[in-house]
Amino acid sequence: MRNFTYHNPTRIVFGKETIAQLTSLVPAGTSVMLTYGGGSIKRNGVYDQVRRALLGHSVVEFGGIEPNPQYETLMRAVGRARETHIDFLLAVGGGSVLDGTKFIAAAIPFTGSDAWDIVAHNAPLLSAMPMGGVLTLPATGSEMNPSAVISRDSTQQKFAFGNDLLYPVFAVLDPLTTYSLPRNQIANGIVDAFVHVLEQYMTYPVNAPLQDRQAEAILITLVEETPNIVKDPPDYDGRAALMWCATQALNGLIACGVPTDWATHMIGHELTALYGIDHGQSLAVVMPAVMRFMADQKHAKLLQYAGRVWGINQGSEEARVNAAIDMTAQFFRSVGVPTKLSDYGISSEAGQRISERFAQRGTLLGEHNTIGASETQAILALCS
Amino acid sequence: MRNFTYHNPTRIVFGKETIAQLTSLVPAGTSVMLTYGGGSIKRNGVYDQVRRALLGHSVVEFGGIEPNPQYETLMRAVGRARETHIDFLLAVGGGSVLDGTKFIAAAIPFTGSDAWDIVAHNAPLLSAMPMGGVLTLPATGSEMNPSAVISRDSTQQKFAFGNDLLYPVFAVLDPLTTYSLPRNQIANGIVDAFVHVLEQYMTYPVNAPLQDRQAEAILITLVEETPNIVKDPPDYDGRAALMWCATQALNGLIACGVPTDWATHMIGHELTALYGIDHGQSLAVVMPAVMRFMADQKHAKLLQYAGRVWGINQGSEEARVNAAIDMTAQFFRSVGVPTKLSDYGISSEAGQRISERFAQRGTLLGEHNTIGASETQAILALCS
Repeated sequence: MRNFTYHNPTRIVFGKETIAQLTSLVPAGTSVMLTYGGGSIKRNGVYDQVRRALLGHSVVEFGGIEPNPQYETLMRAVGRARETHIDFLLAVGGGSVLDGTKFIAAAIPFTGSDAWDIVAHNAPLLSAMPMGGVLTLPATGSEMNPSAVISRDSTQQKFAFGNDLLYPVFAVLDPLTTYSLPRNQIANGIVDAFVHVLEQYMTYPVNAPLQDRQAEAILITLVEETPNIVKDPPDYDGRAALMWCATQALNGLIACGVPTDWATHMIGHELTALYGIDHGQSLAVVMPAVMRFMADQKHAKLLQYAGRVWGINQGSEEARVNAAIDMTAQFFRSVGVPTKLSDYGISSEAGQRISERFAQRGTLLGEHNTIGASETQAILALCS
Repeated sequence: MRNFTYHNPTRIVFGKETIAQLTSLVPAGTSVMLTYGGGSIKRNGVYDQVRRALLGHSVVEFGGIEPNPQYETLMRAVGRARETHIDFLLAVGGGSVLDGTKFIAAAIPFTGSDAWDIVAHNAPLLSAMPMGGVLTLPATGSEMNPSAVISRDSTQQKFAFGNDLLYPVFAVLDPLTTYSLPRNQIANGIVDAFVHVLEQYMTYPVNAPLQDRQAEAILITLVEETPNIVKDPPDYDGRAALMWCATQALNGLIACGVPTDWATHMIGHELTALYGIDHGQSLAVVMPAVMRFMADQKHAKLLQYAGRVWGINQGSEEARVNAAIDMTAQFFRSVGVPTKLSDYGISSEAGQRISERFAQRGTLLGEHNTIGASETQAILALCS
């Protein structure tokens, strides 16, 4: 096991009808900016619950944060928050609203000349505005981590950044808020959580047996609970399981003391930035191809994954590894998320285009930093 | 899944040679009380590492905190800390030193008339002195939770208390510090961590599949790693696995949204208070008996445990349940911790004596509050 530091100060308030607890969770006497997305919270009753809990607080609203939150949109929120002397941010929505609000929290007190540096160069932060969250879409884990992914359409860029100042003070997770989600968003959430775990697990063994089992716990739960998660009408326990899995998948715990490989996310971000496919869709395409391309380096963990997650214990090692990768792709397709670029109308030139971008930036990905431009092209050829 | 709140602000610094990080972890400019136990840290080099890291801090020492830390001892530390205007506590040792230091942290600013009320009646706290820890004995999980168990020999009492103000600010976990531990303390640590998990798992199903898998992850890891944990000379990864398992076993995570049953600990505390056996020994005796006595109420979870932790999937349900309980007791004995009262020279009158104490106090234990005085006597008869 490698040395590590683990510190996650976010308070999770989980369960039925917990939004009312915002009354005591949001610090008394603060002036709150309530951030949200396209307005679905106004149709499903979440907005009303939040406003009821915030009676007595001064509230400024900022709606319209889009999926893959845009720098330009968020900078408008920053301007508004500065003008109105906000001192607490409350994000109500999915990962995009939470991520966008983290950027707002970082940018409000930022004194550098260009706030885009926070995203593009992880510019150091001296402080950040405190924020809380009400999660309505289980997927990204943003509710319990200090990271965010921000996009800039004008330059077709999508980058991740993070800072320990950006852990939400609290996050309210009420599985009932997920009942109105369209099926494809639930499916994307399953894929996103599953891939988050794989990117912290599917590397090479470092004698960290508990972390392996904790990662497998999430993977097995997602596989076994998927029939309950996608039930119509919604099943409370299924939705609760997805919500808690997605949070646990990316709150830092399973990364303790082990190597990680974020190649799938990094390549996926490019697909979203250039072709506009959903984040979950991009992961479902890239992850199986990364596993296939890196099968030698990831051999030991692929074998362990085959046995423990998919129950594949028969056949040659190579056959077991291939079967596990096939089962992974089949799992994504089974929830309705296709796994080939062609399924989304993306031609094979994507590989060329993304590998050129990586060459320009000198990007090196994977747990051994061996995935550069040409390897990325080869990976994308495997999922064309 | 039940509603829950999870918030654990302790910073974990884990790994080889991490004690030096105390230099930055202990807040600059503080006057530190360094608490420890019987002096083993002076023999194994830990004390020197700590003092070296604290050069530049004003340090007052308080040694001699005993196993099952005593109220009278701790009150002397409280007096000393008040006289010397301490503003940070650093506990260096195992669960007893950490627990004792939590009591000191609570008692220093306590304004009630009798500090024993903190332990006996969980008296409300307005504040507590901040504390950090350097863990040298993986077992209790005290390094990442806000609870403590304190004893009072004059009345043969041993009680648990807890308060959210008592999370350590940080805990340094260096597996190398465990190398000098005697074999029986390692064995007790394995039993303590294993039983902590069982007490949050072995109840009844509430559709919390991830929490079940996370609990099983710790149980399976402890069983599989025990040969590495007890190796002589010590094996780093085995010790690291034990250390991380013990922390994860009682930091609140696996209790999220599920019922718990602390009957084994509560009965075990009485055995230690009255007969002086080690905490781990008391648990190894009581846990299998509780499972046997409560086999009907715990049937579904016992079956799941049999299959997932011990791989027992053949035979009648009753046979599988019994085999799993037998395997549990056998596991404790295999690390050198006997599982019968008679092994420790405790006669069957213990059942009578403890059940009288519970009757006097109106104690009701177990996940359904159905274990009272007579049930406790029956449980102790099963392990006589």
